[in-house]
Amino acid sequence: FELFAFWRTSATYRVRVALNLKGVVAEERIVDIDAGEHRSEAYLAINPLGAIPALIDRGAGQSRAPLTQSLAILEFIEELYPEPAILPPDPHGRARVRSLAAMLAADTHPLITPRVRKYLTSQGGFDDAAWRAWQTHWFTTGLQAVEHRLASEAETGAFCHGETITIADICLASILAVLRIFKIEVPAIPTIERIMRSCEAHPAFAKAAPLAQPGAPR
Amino acid sequence: FELFAFWRTSATYRVRVALNLKGVVAEERIVDIDAGEHRSEAYLAINPLGAIPALIDRGAGQSRAPLTQSLAILEFIEELYPEPAILPPDPHGRARVRSLAAMLAADTHPLITPRVRKYLTSQGGFDDAAWRAWQTHWFTTGLQAVEHRLASEAETGAFCHGETITIADICLASILAVLRIFKIEVPAIPTIERIMRSCEAHPAFAKAAPLAQPGAPR
Repeated sequence: FELFAFWRTSATYRVRVALNLKGVVAEERIVDIDAGEHRSEAYLAINPLGAIPALIDRGAGQSRAPLTQSLAILEFIEELYPEPAILPPDPHGRARVRSLAAMLAADTHPLITPRVRKYLTSQGGFDDAAWRAWQTHWFTTGLQAVEHRLASEAETGAFCHGETITIADICLASILAVLRIFKIEVPAIPTIERIMRSCEAHPAFAKAAPLAQPGAPR
Repeated sequence: FELFAFWRTSATYRVRVALNLKGVVAEERIVDIDAGEHRSEAYLAINPLGAIPALIDRGAGQSRAPLTQSLAILEFIEELYPEPAILPPDPHGRARVRSLAAMLAADTHPLITPRVRKYLTSQGGFDDAAWRAWQTHWFTTGLQAVEHRLASEAETGAFCHGETITIADICLASILAVLRIFKIEVPAIPTIERIMRSCEAHPAFAKAAPLAQPGAPR
């Protein structure tokens, strides 16, 4: 596998954790978003959408289109490498985990991406303080909704769903990582903080951490 | 099944199409978002997040938590009722379909929801014209990125992926339905328009159309 990646993006982090958990090695190619490399001709020839991450399966010598969208890539990794499982064995459990993952990766994360920042600051009249208020608002509402579920639903265990790491934990950790990079405080998320300590104790998460990647500020 | 639904929301429409395709009947309970019913005590007792749609599995007399998040619900329906399949049989095909679905349901749709409108018009200084420009911008970039893939990738057929309806078509139709309700024009999407004609010819889509639901304006 070849993984086109950038140290900071939370979607890349998700894929990195899943590969680590499964013990799958992917060669990482750094695409420097800050330098605009995701819009370069060289990268657009690989992925015409310019999206990060992109995972290319070089298995069996085949030339295949890059896989994109972190949630789709996580499901793909789970299908190819079922052990250890990152989805529960029962349909209701899988639906709960996918729902928690979507609350984070689909309901919350798309609102605070660089392309949204660009629009709001260049065309929407947002200054830095307004952008920060926007970020804080969506992180807070998104994480407090997840906190409410985790604190009240019986399926929650040491991790979001029982005692093993699932796609929900991976998405949660990816959002928390972004929160820390931007130094945003979200009040009243004790269950999330407890689960994050369990995740951080696992080498798959530690190895994948944004600030531990090549290209990150020291 | 009991489906808590509202005529206009594209996420509800996705679930309705999938149930129709599988021939599964769900009793619909209307939650009138315009009247604020999703924030009423009665609905919050059912789904504390107030999110629409929510699907409750009443099978086997069990009392279960509601399933939320349309993509998680679509995967659940596919697992319980595999025929006709709405995901391809191979992992690369499934990854492609899930990626297209995420480009629409995760990258595009969350940006144009009522809660974002509320923030931008009440706290972000957006007037109606600015909101319309915002909507048009994200629909256009999202759909043109999907158009680019559908027009250039070999897997595209009568539908987004080959000759059968998948989750990607369901998400695409749900975005197009919203586009029409808001009367927004997106230029240069001929492949999408061709696929939409195939979808609309299918009774599962026609029966699920927002304007065909109870509560819709006549």
